[in-house]
Amino acid sequence: MKTLAVPPVPPFPPLNPLIAALGSSAIRDLLAVVSRPGMLSLAGGLPAVDTFPAARIADVARALLADHPEVGLQYGPTEGDDRLRAWIAGYEAERSGRPVDPSRVIVTAGSQQALDLVVRTLVRPGAAVVVEEPGYLGALQALRAAGADLVPVPVDADGLDVDALAVRLAAGLRPVAVHTVTTFHNPSGATLSVERRRRLAALADRYGFVVVEDDPYAEIRFGGRPMPAVRAFTDRVVTLGSFSKTVAPGLRVGWCVVPEPLLAPVARLKQAADLHAGSFSQALVVGLVSDAGWWSAHLAEIRRVYACRAAALAAALAEAFGERLVVGAARGGMFLWGRFTDATRTRELLAPALAEGVAFVPGPEFFTRPGGEDALRLSFATNAPEQLAEAVRRLAAAHTSSS
Amino acid sequence: MKTLAVPPVPPFPPLNPLIAALGSSAIRDLLAVVSRPGMLSLAGGLPAVDTFPAARIADVARALLADHPEVGLQYGPTEGDDRLRAWIAGYEAERSGRPVDPSRVIVTAGSQQALDLVVRTLVRPGAAVVVEEPGYLGALQALRAAGADLVPVPVDADGLDVDALAVRLAAGLRPVAVHTVTTFHNPSGATLSVERRRRLAALADRYGFVVVEDDPYAEIRFGGRPMPAVRAFTDRVVTLGSFSKTVAPGLRVGWCVVPEPLLAPVARLKQAADLHAGSFSQALVVGLVSDAGWWSAHLAEIRRVYACRAAALAAALAEAFGERLVVGAARGGMFLWGRFTDATRTRELLAPALAEGVAFVPGPEFFTRPGGEDALRLSFATNAPEQLAEAVRRLAAAHTSSS
Repeated sequence: MKTLAVPPVPPFPPLNPLIAALGSSAIRDLLAVVSRPGMLSLAGGLPAVDTFPAARIADVARALLADHPEVGLQYGPTEGDDRLRAWIAGYEAERSGRPVDPSRVIVTAGSQQALDLVVRTLVRPGAAVVVEEPGYLGALQALRAAGADLVPVPVDADGLDVDALAVRLAAGLRPVAVHTVTTFHNPSGATLSVERRRRLAALADRYGFVVVEDDPYAEIRFGGRPMPAVRAFTDRVVTLGSFSKTVAPGLRVGWCVVPEPLLAPVARLKQAADLHAGSFSQALVVGLVSDAGWWSAHLAEIRRVYACRAAALAAALAEAFGERLVVGAARGGMFLWGRFTDATRTRELLAPALAEGVAFVPGPEFFTRPGGEDALRLSFATNAPEQLAEAVRRLAAAHTSSS
Repeated sequence: MKTLAVPPVPPFPPLNPLIAALGSSAIRDLLAVVSRPGMLSLAGGLPAVDTFPAARIADVARALLADHPEVGLQYGPTEGDDRLRAWIAGYEAERSGRPVDPSRVIVTAGSQQALDLVVRTLVRPGAAVVVEEPGYLGALQALRAAGADLVPVPVDADGLDVDALAVRLAAGLRPVAVHTVTTFHNPSGATLSVERRRRLAALADRYGFVVVEDDPYAEIRFGGRPMPAVRAFTDRVVTLGSFSKTVAPGLRVGWCVVPEPLLAPVARLKQAADLHAGSFSQALVVGLVSDAGWWSAHLAEIRRVYACRAAALAAALAEAFGERLVVGAARGGMFLWGRFTDATRTRELLAPALAEGVAFVPGPEFFTRPGGEDALRLSFATNAPEQLAEAVRRLAAAHTSSS
């Protein structure tokens, strides 16, 4: 007598290989460790809580919910709140010296979503996209999810090495896009020079690629002169911006300004992705930025806080490491990029540092190929000056014990 | 003497064909029209502004910003606020009768984003996905963006026709997923019977596909008995949920509960997509749902409002159209689905209706193939009973003038 065969349980369906292959970000893994009590983290790019305009947000929220609850709580237009789009268009016009039509602005859930939507629209699997090396990890993740063929080009003290890019283009490289964090680069802190901005724009017009200018740190400037946005020199540009550093990241409000051919596709994809950015968050930001006097004073205060923190971190590093660590100039943004000159390997330094109670991100995490072994990224944004000094003492202790 | 050749301006790079091919949603186009002053719209699924707990949100916001600004304003974990994940896990456990581990919950920017992330993870271009016909347009958009091969299966008065699905599966169809709005279906209003839920789960286990149970309307029940979630009968299910109908859509807070094989990939994709759902919105929802007494009274009030509106719309339709319009039973959700018996073609009715000052969505918009020519979707959610009555008077006038 035969027994009945139990039908086999079918396997879980195979996943989209592009998504299944996404690695976990090193910073994400690190953030799980750094929540330990007593840990001082220079790893994440978390803004200073002191800079969040909590009281002002509370005032705006109270008035909004009492007078116009539907504005903050109902579904809104896919492209965003028209008042916010107009304000962003004005801001982008001012810093590029060219008019920007508000219809070209799409409000997103932070600039990370703007990047993801633009990348999904521009990139088909296998398309070449130039990325910076070292580069912003969030961009690499979004590009990998879209199946981009990542082509790294180096960053130096003046930002993306546009000459190196020109050589690659002359040799036949045909990217659909070049992603660049132009101002106070993450992780290197470098700012793309005006001459390179102009040259990059000319290359875009000549070879037909789109410059994706990712510029969340532009307003956190406490040294040097403001730079014109790449939009000043070409129409073949997507500008990404964010209120995460100037208001608060927890609101998730950012934007992109896109060329005409991208407008309808990105808006439709935005609708499929999450319908629209949060109405409440957008209305809060409108309430803040529409008082120009308050907004300008608020930005000045943020710059003061970060200038003070950057100076404190740089001074502590100079005192602790001297010439053994070369640190880039800090004129804005949130990060210092250091390179050890004493053969320290920063990936090996991480475990002793965590044991001492300080976290940072080793340089190689920002590279798509081997590189940055002697480098590390240190955020001065999150901690107060006295904590930054203590963090550097711990880092120096880890360095001594491991060398 | 030769003139110098001007180099040709290169064309804009070709877009990802999947995104370039996304059509505009008919509802999206309609929403541009219905913002006209005086228009009564039964087209969109906009919740009643009266049901938004604006005063309560203002209280929670004030306390949060005064006591813990960092909770609402700082970057947060990719998977969401742990308190909210725990609450959602408890909710999903209760309605499926099975424990749900909070680690399986990912908080998203509305359930639309949950759908988009799950689809991007599960679907590679060309993969078959079963959709309902008529079906939710937002699902079709997200699936098209991922390159899914859409396989429509009819919906009847008991929801998705699981027998028809079984026939297709027996004939060799091998979808990676079946998308279904199980309770108070959009657009048909139907609810999947318990027997069909059980059968659908068994088919998932037998053929290996994932049921994507899209269930944003479950709590808006004012008739009939609550149904167990599909999770009650299988592990091979993704549950999508939302606070858009029970709190406010402008906050953009929804969720998915995913099987173990999807957890890490969906979380990584969420990080690439927008880092995390809004911290402020999540903290507001936590503040609301954690007062169980208030929450339960609030849900009761929402149900009362929608029961009243649904009854008003149904009564006005019956009076105006009698047997010329067959309207499905309304036991919850936001929509009535009507079918004309007098050869009215609803696409042809739309222009006269808009001219009379009333908007609806014609049935064919919810079909991937020709179908639904005699049908229309009417939302009872947005307007008060007296406005619904006026809207039906206008619809009847348009019907008379066009027939």
